[in-house]
Amino acid sequence: MEEVEVAPPGRLEVRVKVIFTSICHTDLSAWKGENEMQRKFPRILGHEAVGVVESVGEGVEDLVPGDHVVPIFTGECRECVYCKSDKTNLCGTYRVNPLKSTMVSDDGTRFSVVDRSSGELRPVYHFLNTSTFTEYTVLDAACAVKINPKAPMEKMYLLSCGISTGVGAAWNTANISKGSTVAVFGLGAVGLAVAEGARLRGAARIIGVDINPEKFSKGKEMGVTDFINSNACGKPVHEVIREMTDGGVDYSFECTGINAVLREAFVSTHDGWGLTVVLGIHATPKMMPLHPMELFDGRLITGCVFGDFKGKSQLPELVDKCINGEVNINFDGFITHKMPFSDINKAFQLLEEGKSLRCLLNL
Amino acid sequence: MEEVEVAPPGRLEVRVKVIFTSICHTDLSAWKGENEMQRKFPRILGHEAVGVVESVGEGVEDLVPGDHVVPIFTGECRECVYCKSDKTNLCGTYRVNPLKSTMVSDDGTRFSVVDRSSGELRPVYHFLNTSTFTEYTVLDAACAVKINPKAPMEKMYLLSCGISTGVGAAWNTANISKGSTVAVFGLGAVGLAVAEGARLRGAARIIGVDINPEKFSKGKEMGVTDFINSNACGKPVHEVIREMTDGGVDYSFECTGINAVLREAFVSTHDGWGLTVVLGIHATPKMMPLHPMELFDGRLITGCVFGDFKGKSQLPELVDKCINGEVNINFDGFITHKMPFSDINKAFQLLEEGKSLRCLLNL
Ligand SMILES: [Zn+2]
Ligand SMILES: [Zn+2]
Ligand SMILES: [Zn+2]
Ligand SMILES: [Zn+2]
Repeated sequence: MEEVEVAPPGRLEVRVKVIFTSICHTDLSAWKGENEMQRKFPRILGHEAVGVVESVGEGVEDLVPGDHVVPIFTGECRECVYCKSDKTNLCGTYRVNPLKSTMVSDDGTRFSVVDRSSGELRPVYHFLNTSTFTEYTVLDAACAVKINPKAPMEKMYLLSCGISTGVGAAWNTANISKGSTVAVFGLGAVGLAVAEGARLRGAARIIGVDINPEKFSKGKEMGVTDFINSNACGKPVHEVIREMTDGGVDYSFECTGINAVLREAFVSTHDGWGLTVVLGIHATPKMMPLHPMELFDGRLITGCVFGDFKGKSQLPELVDKCINGEVNINFDGFITHKMPFSDINKAFQLLEEGKSLRCLLNL
Repeated sequence: MEEVEVAPPGRLEVRVKVIFTSICHTDLSAWKGENEMQRKFPRILGHEAVGVVESVGEGVEDLVPGDHVVPIFTGECRECVYCKSDKTNLCGTYRVNPLKSTMVSDDGTRFSVVDRSSGELRPVYHFLNTSTFTEYTVLDAACAVKINPKAPMEKMYLLSCGISTGVGAAWNTANISKGSTVAVFGLGAVGLAVAEGARLRGAARIIGVDINPEKFSKGKEMGVTDFINSNACGKPVHEVIREMTDGGVDYSFECTGINAVLREAFVSTHDGWGLTVVLGIHATPKMMPLHPMELFDGRLITGCVFGDFKGKSQLPELVDKCINGEVNINFDGFITHKMPFSDINKAFQLLEEGKSLRCLLNL
């Protein structure tokens, strides 16, 4: 814990008091220094949160102090060619970029610390357009989604990453239809959010695949109907799945970031129409483990960022539906632990040991 | 040329008198013995043709002698789970299979020759569900599309492979919309059929890419608007295309079967929504030259067989539209040569030298 100075918001920015935050695998991986390339240090991690707007910068028209907001790591400016297209949620200006460490408006940082030796202010860098492991953060207004103030903040923070990514992959990217069959590879928070999205769409069968059998009881609670322990099933997982589903599932989701699992996920779908959605971060410089000719079997593969949600346009309506009961996402099921923000290192430990899904940290 | 005995059609089969046929690159490649694996010999090549039903086997209900038919290498039984799905044209029973060399009904052949030494009948095998380089052939009824007898046979044979594959890729697989931008890699018959499909959909720009500048004049005649000689453009083709189109084309089509070209085609599309359709036969055992993380840029890649047309269900209507002028496919543009079937070796030569698109062979 360190004292950080948080500058006022610049043009098209807002300063936000963070109320709840939590840790996702992307934070864990950044904290451990994995796949770091030329990223800047020091910086403030954290990207799943909910907060209240404290002040707004010049030009911000859709947010005022007091608004409840969910930070989103991939923004929506509503003006670029991408935002105007209905085929993508990848904003040209505020798209997620792991290497980005400064604000768009002036390429500067809004965080600084006093250097102990020189007494001068040193910049502290931003992370994933969000940086939520702090009492106050500064966001591009394009990365702050205003939500209904009646919505319970201690649940809504999950829309910042995990739930939006998984549920959106099931709804927007795959567009799962009632009665279909689904396989989810990797039963972490994102995988379970996919299962939750599939359950809400009325999937007939949701097969969870993991190497950790302890994840199966949680999965069952979250709507997973069948389990495969890929370390103990005695043959390739895709063979087991094809036998269970008369030729393969309609949809598979790769939530592990492991290249060999991506291949299993791909060949686990039914030929002719199976769709694989890649959600895992495949950081190693490996090529896709598929042969071009395999595309002729009618299986599809795609990736998605933030569940293909256009955050500012679509999340407020989703929040309203969650409040009025039209949509029943099991937020509580994801929150396995709660503790004060000061215990964040304990929370990191729990996630790393695979003991938690989401630990709610209150500031 | 050899005398072959053609047996009567078996159950669910028809015997067809071939009227016109032509040579496609798949025949050329099989003739040269490329990627042959464990295929059977001798066999009768040829898969692009038009003919007249001479007799029908037991159980055939939708065809009678005298019907004009277009053979299709990937059949449609209308009864299997694939045929009943609106997401695929890959029939479970009669799907194209390069290794298949016998009929479905009894795993036998309908062709035989007298062995010169023993005097016994030796089987001659089938090819791609069609085998059209013969005066008479036997087809599964699922692989024979009945067309309007008023349709000009000397054009309709092109629906057997090249035009259906290319036009269908543009219409069914990519679903190209008016005003969009398109890049076609490889300006052979399939590539030009893609361009034709794109032109008919009102594409604003159709960029043809080839290493052979002689193909450009033909391309222009067929609706290609811009050309890139990939051997002479001085930088990677995708950079040229991105500059020409303000970030990339909406659709690209890979019609060469070359792995490096597949990569260029993929990265030539606009991020966020670009779609690459793979049509080339990538026979080498190479993995897809893409990194899984590249899927997160919103580019899509897919393959298609026979332009995603369900042959028996959809081609008859297309033929009717071609007759009544609703659809104006430039069939004649593809037919660069005409000769009697007895000159087939000359026709093979022309295709191999890149001098012909389609040579109409009449029997
Ligand atoms: Zn996350
Ligand atoms: Zn934008
Ligand atoms: Zn062909
Ligand atoms: Zn079928």
